[in-house]
Amino acid sequence: MTEKKAPPIQPMSGSIVPRYAGPSTFCRLPELRDVGYCDVAVLGIPFDSGTSYRPGARFGPQAIRQASRHLRYNFHPAYGTEPFRELQVADAGDVPCNPYSISEAIEQIEAAASELLSNVGTLISLGGDHTIAVPLLRAMHQRHGPVALVHFDAHLDTWDTYFGAPYTHGTPFRRAAEEGLFDDQASMHVGIRGPLYSSEDLAQDAELGFKVIHCDELNEQGPDHVAARIRDRVGDVPLYLSIDIDVLDPAHAPGTGTPEVAGLSSRELINILRGLKGIRMVGGDIVEVAPAYDHAEITSLAAATIAFELVNLILCGSK
Amino acid sequence: MTEKKAPPIQPMSGSIVPRYAGPSTFCRLPELRDVGYCDVAVLGIPFDSGTSYRPGARFGPQAIRQASRHLRYNFHPAYGTEPFRELQVADAGDVPCNPYSISEAIEQIEAAASELLSNVGTLISLGGDHTIAVPLLRAMHQRHGPVALVHFDAHLDTWDTYFGAPYTHGTPFRRAAEEGLFDDQASMHVGIRGPLYSSEDLAQDAELGFKVIHCDELNEQGPDHVAARIRDRVGDVPLYLSIDIDVLDPAHAPGTGTPEVAGLSSRELINILRGLKGIRMVGGDIVEVAPAYDHAEITSLAAATIAFELVNLILCGSK
Amino acid sequence: MTEKKAPPIQPMSGSIVPRYAGPSTFCRLPELRDVGYCDVAVLGIPFDSGTSYRPGARFGPQAIRQASRHLRYNFHPAYGTEPFRELQVADAGDVPCNPYSISEAIEQIEAAASELLSNVGTLISLGGDHTIAVPLLRAMHQRHGPVALVHFDAHLDTWDTYFGAPYTHGTPFRRAAEEGLFDDQASMHVGIRGPLYSSEDLAQDAELGFKVIHCDELNEQGPDHVAARIRDRVGDVPLYLSIDIDVLDPAHAPGTGTPEVAGLSSRELINILRGLKGIRMVGGDIVEVAPAYDHAEITSLAAATIAFELVNLILCGSK
Amino acid sequence: MTEKKAPPIQPMSGSIVPRYAGPSTFCRLPELRDVGYCDVAVLGIPFDSGTSYRPGARFGPQAIRQASRHLRYNFHPAYGTEPFRELQVADAGDVPCNPYSISEAIEQIEAAASELLSNVGTLISLGGDHTIAVPLLRAMHQRHGPVALVHFDAHLDTWDTYFGAPYTHGTPFRRAAEEGLFDDQASMHVGIRGPLYSSEDLAQDAELGFKVIHCDELNEQGPDHVAARIRDRVGDVPLYLSIDIDVLDPAHAPGTGTPEVAGLSSRELINILRGLKGIRMVGGDIVEVAPAYDHAEITSLAAATIAFELVNLILCGSK
Amino acid sequence: MTEKKAPPIQPMSGSIVPRYAGPSTFCRLPELRDVGYCDVAVLGIPFDSGTSYRPGARFGPQAIRQASRHLRYNFHPAYGTEPFRELQVADAGDVPCNPYSISEAIEQIEAAASELLSNVGTLISLGGDHTIAVPLLRAMHQRHGPVALVHFDAHLDTWDTYFGAPYTHGTPFRRAAEEGLFDDQASMHVGIRGPLYSSEDLAQDAELGFKVIHCDELNEQGPDHVAARIRDRVGDVPLYLSIDIDVLDPAHAPGTGTPEVAGLSSRELINILRGLKGIRMVGGDIVEVAPAYDHAEITSLAAATIAFELVNLILCGSK
Amino acid sequence: MTEKKAPPIQPMSGSIVPRYAGPSTFCRLPELRDVGYCDVAVLGIPFDSGTSYRPGARFGPQAIRQASRHLRYNFHPAYGTEPFRELQVADAGDVPCNPYSISEAIEQIEAAASELLSNVGTLISLGGDHTIAVPLLRAMHQRHGPVALVHFDAHLDTWDTYFGAPYTHGTPFRRAAEEGLFDDQASMHVGIRGPLYSSEDLAQDAELGFKVIHCDELNEQGPDHVAARIRDRVGDVPLYLSIDIDVLDPAHAPGTGTPEVAGLSSRELINILRGLKGIRMVGGDIVEVAPAYDHAEITSLAAATIAFELVNLILCGSK
Repeated sequence: MTEKKAPPIQPMSGSIVPRYAGPSTFCRLPELRDVGYCDVAVLGIPFDSGTSYRPGARFGPQAIRQASRHLRYNFHPAYGTEPFRELQVADAGDVPCNPYSISEAIEQIEAAASELLSNVGTLISLGGDHTIAVPLLRAMHQRHGPVALVHFDAHLDTWDTYFGAPYTHGTPFRRAAEEGLFDDQASMHVGIRGPLYSSEDLAQDAELGFKVIHCDELNEQGPDHVAARIRDRVGDVPLYLSIDIDVLDPAHAPGTGTPEVAGLSSRELINILRGLKGIRMVGGDIVEVAPAYDHAEITSLAAATIAFELVNLILCGSK
Repeated sequence: MTEKKAPPIQPMSGSIVPRYAGPSTFCRLPELRDVGYCDVAVLGIPFDSGTSYRPGARFGPQAIRQASRHLRYNFHPAYGTEPFRELQVADAGDVPCNPYSISEAIEQIEAAASELLSNVGTLISLGGDHTIAVPLLRAMHQRHGPVALVHFDAHLDTWDTYFGAPYTHGTPFRRAAEEGLFDDQASMHVGIRGPLYSSEDLAQDAELGFKVIHCDELNEQGPDHVAARIRDRVGDVPLYLSIDIDVLDPAHAPGTGTPEVAGLSSRELINILRGLKGIRMVGGDIVEVAPAYDHAEITSLAAATIAFELVNLILCGSK
Repeated sequence: MTEKKAPPIQPMSGSIVPRYAGPSTFCRLPELRDVGYCDVAVLGIPFDSGTSYRPGARFGPQAIRQASRHLRYNFHPAYGTEPFRELQVADAGDVPCNPYSISEAIEQIEAAASELLSNVGTLISLGGDHTIAVPLLRAMHQRHGPVALVHFDAHLDTWDTYFGAPYTHGTPFRRAAEEGLFDDQASMHVGIRGPLYSSEDLAQDAELGFKVIHCDELNEQGPDHVAARIRDRVGDVPLYLSIDIDVLDPAHAPGTGTPEVAGLSSRELINILRGLKGIRMVGGDIVEVAPAYDHAEITSLAAATIAFELVNLILCGSK
Repeated sequence: MTEKKAPPIQPMSGSIVPRYAGPSTFCRLPELRDVGYCDVAVLGIPFDSGTSYRPGARFGPQAIRQASRHLRYNFHPAYGTEPFRELQVADAGDVPCNPYSISEAIEQIEAAASELLSNVGTLISLGGDHTIAVPLLRAMHQRHGPVALVHFDAHLDTWDTYFGAPYTHGTPFRRAAEEGLFDDQASMHVGIRGPLYSSEDLAQDAELGFKVIHCDELNEQGPDHVAARIRDRVGDVPLYLSIDIDVLDPAHAPGTGTPEVAGLSSRELINILRGLKGIRMVGGDIVEVAPAYDHAEITSLAAATIAFELVNLILCGSK
Repeated sequence: MTEKKAPPIQPMSGSIVPRYAGPSTFCRLPELRDVGYCDVAVLGIPFDSGTSYRPGARFGPQAIRQASRHLRYNFHPAYGTEPFRELQVADAGDVPCNPYSISEAIEQIEAAASELLSNVGTLISLGGDHTIAVPLLRAMHQRHGPVALVHFDAHLDTWDTYFGAPYTHGTPFRRAAEEGLFDDQASMHVGIRGPLYSSEDLAQDAELGFKVIHCDELNEQGPDHVAARIRDRVGDVPLYLSIDIDVLDPAHAPGTGTPEVAGLSSRELINILRGLKGIRMVGGDIVEVAPAYDHAEITSLAAATIAFELVNLILCGSK
Repeated sequence: MTEKKAPPIQPMSGSIVPRYAGPSTFCRLPELRDVGYCDVAVLGIPFDSGTSYRPGARFGPQAIRQASRHLRYNFHPAYGTEPFRELQVADAGDVPCNPYSISEAIEQIEAAASELLSNVGTLISLGGDHTIAVPLLRAMHQRHGPVALVHFDAHLDTWDTYFGAPYTHGTPFRRAAEEGLFDDQASMHVGIRGPLYSSEDLAQDAELGFKVIHCDELNEQGPDHVAARIRDRVGDVPLYLSIDIDVLDPAHAPGTGTPEVAGLSSRELINILRGLKGIRMVGGDIVEVAPAYDHAEITSLAAATIAFELVNLILCGSK
């Protein structure tokens, strides 16, 4: 994926500085300014003005970074990778987002992501609420054209408007569809569950081009089977993974804004991701971590772990 | 189920008043006084003087109502229903219960439930501790004769007395059996687990007519299989579902008084319930939510979701 | 204050229905629709899109109402009042506020408050963040002309804009000054403390007409002395009290968005309010209760208690 | 106070076994069975069926003992005492109380306390809710005749009945007055605050013989002055101190069932107690610690500290 | 297992003293001093100076004992046992451990365990962090020679040193291997998951003689299958079970120092243990419960339940 | 204090990047590497192996930095300062400390502090437990000779050893006295309270040269009076302030390891510090913040605010 000769600058070693100390970057990685170029940039997007129920995802990026201190990262046996030795990964800091103007914030995010993507290999974004997926997909589209959008979530997020607002955390993928940002033959939702605002929701969603793997299908299909269905759907189209942490059951992710019971366990989700090894992944986001509702960091630790899995997926998909 | 011509009065719409605002009724439904008649009344029973370990279920009804704000309720794809359009559902408020006299409280609950049942289609009760099942079953029996009692719980709740008291949250189904309130050929416990106070507990329970689906049986049987066993047992007898939230694992329902590890996940429970679609259900309760031990509303949200599933079951069973 | 002959409809009695049960209105009072007219309406304004740090005050009104269940209200010895017998007080529910548009929400609040004020004696509003003070003061001004604005807060809330937005929780009193909504000879801040964004903050604030009682002045002056200073400043001008719960020390009010250490104790604040007995008070608000950061309801209980003190002040001021 | 020759058996030393380890008795003292006789017995009374709002004080004794591990106890400079060297203090365990029968529990407590008092010097009881004061005062009366009852509380606790029940946590001192258990010329309430259920409450309370030091009087009077007023009132009558932890402000004691804002700080309360040095104290209780609402043990630590102050008061009063 | 004639002294009965009251020993069992001899001693080891991330397991033993109050223990249907009637089980209190010297603490633990093992049948130890496994295995080895070590954990705990320290909670089984404390043909790790510090970790671990059942293998293998694999591996070698509570998913055990997402549910773990019925088990430990990170006791209740399962395994294995 | 010509590099502006976003340094200041030289360096010392009760202060520096995001810092009216414009302040990161070796950690801290002090104006250290005061005072002594040590704490911290260890969080000032690190004519403890391990504690402490302002003296003396006493004691000797957060009452600082009730309010402490304006201060530390026991960041916010006050004191003392 990279032609750079110098070996990547490593995260702070846990055998020199205890993991509860040292840099506050994701996985205690170098900052982007320290590396010049990186294969994967981890970007915080502390924005939650698109939230419809419990706010607080603005504190998500800091909480995920804090939880990521605890990760072991040298070797990942599920992928056979040494991700931070094979890729230069760096923390790109936070995008400044206007909390009082959704439209200005979307512009800020799109501009920051676009500029970053012209300088780094790819992005993993830490939200923030799901509103941020629109500007992120725009930036991705600029670089890759329509991506395969695989979206893990309890909710479809394809409503039209909410209180008259076109850009909220319940509407990003309707906007993305209207703009043609994703390949409607290669995209899907995973983990959808629960009742709906309207009997039309699923039909309208299907018209936008999405397929759905409902959460209850996990009752009989294991993670490997679900992963295979995703791979079939995505094929060779460059993949963008958008993961709303509420795809997890509230037992596994209480710290979120619109929890929905009867969800995935963290083991199911992690193993679905591992089942995607080799897929050509070009970016992703983890959103909706609201730390004020978390306990003992279990939600932010799940999100940090997912972000690290995404690094490995990007690495494997680029080989 | 209803002959009424006027369409049901709807809950407050989440597109007009944000879900965190507006009425504090269950699902922001109308109050009973607003509708005159309803098909399903949701009734709070804030009573916990029958508790043996952690008290606090007196705050259960308010917490479940607060969590229910968050539910989406228009269309339930698992049942193909628009429950609040097909049924008039209303919040009947709380039964005043004397916290200092178990016997008086039982009389208050029986009187309130009986009177309600003469005016509404059926009841879903929000506890409160499990003591309340006795007066509720009495009221049900008055109307339906012996019901099929299907009881989800970690515990049998068929002890004889506790500290000399015949009515506690550990004894309701012994009392109900003595009074012939349920059909002993159609009743069962689901989710029982853990060690027992006596090796006689299971034998005595069987003598009362209960069959048991132990929680560990879920290790090999999926929710659909368990649902089928329940349907076989119940047959055509009118069903009363009594759901102790501690049937869920403490990871899914920490906010309860006598938690027992190694329980059901919320997805297992919800899917067992969905597997009962079409069964003739005439009432139910959800008990033992103790909010002081909850976190981020995960227990009360589970209870609210279960209550909503019960509405759908009642609807499907009445078609 | 009222010519009505019928005695006020009382809150639900705690000797009939335990306080943890029954209506979810403020102090379990009747709803406005139940009384036709009321002397004091308690109005929820669940809006927090003007927040600059920790969001979540949208859940404030529900939390304050829930905590208010616990209040004893029949007789207040500090005022010698039986407030709910001498006044008809009712809960006016929540104003629907668009969470995605500050300007629309402000219009909604102003319209709702203005309409209410044409039908009721006065308003006590439960926020919500401090942005709501602008539309509330507009409605007050329509009825009373410029009011004496006494503002309890850790912060001045007279900044000009924040991220370009003129209406946020840090700017309401600058806007109110520009619009002439308060009497600049009769207004003051109480409880101000901590460092400032600029050395100009205090000077600019003074230009708007405010006097300041800094929190540290409480080190030497007791609540009675502070109350006397407020009374001197207000004189006979109709008083509007705007109370940001963060005027309390974080030990007394952890559940707020921009806590500031070294604040007032709840006893100091309550006793300053009691020292205002007899002042002509025409309305007020309690804002910035963010329940996700509260513990054991101590913040929402403080807010509910303050709201009840305001009812008594209104009563005493109207005699 | 004691003629015993052998030096008291000491608590487990914190320099041998870390304080977070070792016995779970109060202050890691010996159990009563280990000492035969003791000057002061610390008795747990895990009963909360008399609670009117938040239950959970049944877990109070264990929580207070756990917090007491942390106390340093060898030398108390405020009294000049080495209390556990000058007195044999021991943990008498818990009274078994029937949670389903208030009347039986009262009998159990009275019997246990009476029997203990025939074998030990005196008792400090750890509640449990305030209902327990009645049987404790009966046992005290058997031994000492009418005691001076000094009662620290936010509430009078002299209501007549609650939901028809004569024995609840809101009524103990009415019952005690009717039975003549305390000396009505030497008794008082300290810390009373907030509105009341009736304008008659204070008058009726006064008829029972109580004087009141209202909490707001602390605004101008320091702890020493309040202590002097108590000493004047008590005189030479043997003193029984009954301390409801809700006399503290919720900031200092969130873990209680009926919190009331604007209360005492822990420093004020502790210093009032220290101001009683030398008074002839013959027993006491600390009640209403509800650990489910506590945070970081601040309430139970306050209660444990108060219990230790009482040991010192008993010692100083016996010299 | 025992020749003693007198029936075992029973735990405090829950029908005489409510479970939230009475002794603070494990399951309210007698203390070791009360029984002279016991078949199984439960020993607290409050030591956490070997922790690398979140400390606090020093409070583990007290928390597990407190949670164990809640267990029902008379009859265990999964084993067909009445464990406390068939075995004398007692609480041996806590080992005093120097928090400032890992090496001294290890000596203290080894000495205490060795002495105990010369007087009792066997030990179940409650940690404390995993460092304590080394001295416990030494004591076991003195009595049984090399044991089959089956280790449930998210982590291998076979690193060499950490910050130069040979004895930490990440290194015990490397030390144990070097000392030949376990039978390397009969030992294994269960539940291992997540990325590693080095690609060499697994290879080095295998050289020490361990087999590994990775947590992800549970996706396809049920608890019975995993139990069978363990039984095959252990054969007739006396079994020592060392259970790090972080083998559970953080949803099931948030209260631990180094949580790792995607773990076992408590039902999986409990059922694996039950699948070992009949195996010859000679001792075990449950470690890494850090109560400061727990919620509603779910972690300590899981640990207490596991400890009780171990008692049953010991009983069944000795028949 | 500084001869540098270039204006200081400012913290990230809160009007460009919202305070919940952006750098994780103290007050979002530049890192030391960004400034070359600074007048005041803020240094994290994440070490808690010297703790005797609740551990967890190793997470203190990160928590204090996170809370410091919320501070307004441009102009401090109590000092009349614009501290970050008048001084270059920077975050020097964390000292790597060996958690398994107190002696090695002390060497690491001393080396790091000494090296820093040769390059920066002075240090404010964020602990960590109080053990760290010894190496910090050594580094201070190297530069300034014996300092005036003013120590805010509930405890004397002058015990000799604890479990044989000379360096723990209860012994630093005994060690410092033995080494002559402070001027025994200019040093004192402030806030001491509660019972003691021995009646000799105060006498031995006095022999080391300390004067004591007991916490209870605040009952009658205001913060200004206490500040005057400190100024009298310190005179012109360069002042080192060591502030244990447990000097605050647990209501104001629950997140600490050895809480002691009846302490200072945050307003009292902050105002004592402000009363020291103009004193010649050369360094300080804030220790014993244990975030696992904090709630809503009230403890870490107090600590961050204190650190900012110290910056202002250093500035005023250098003018």
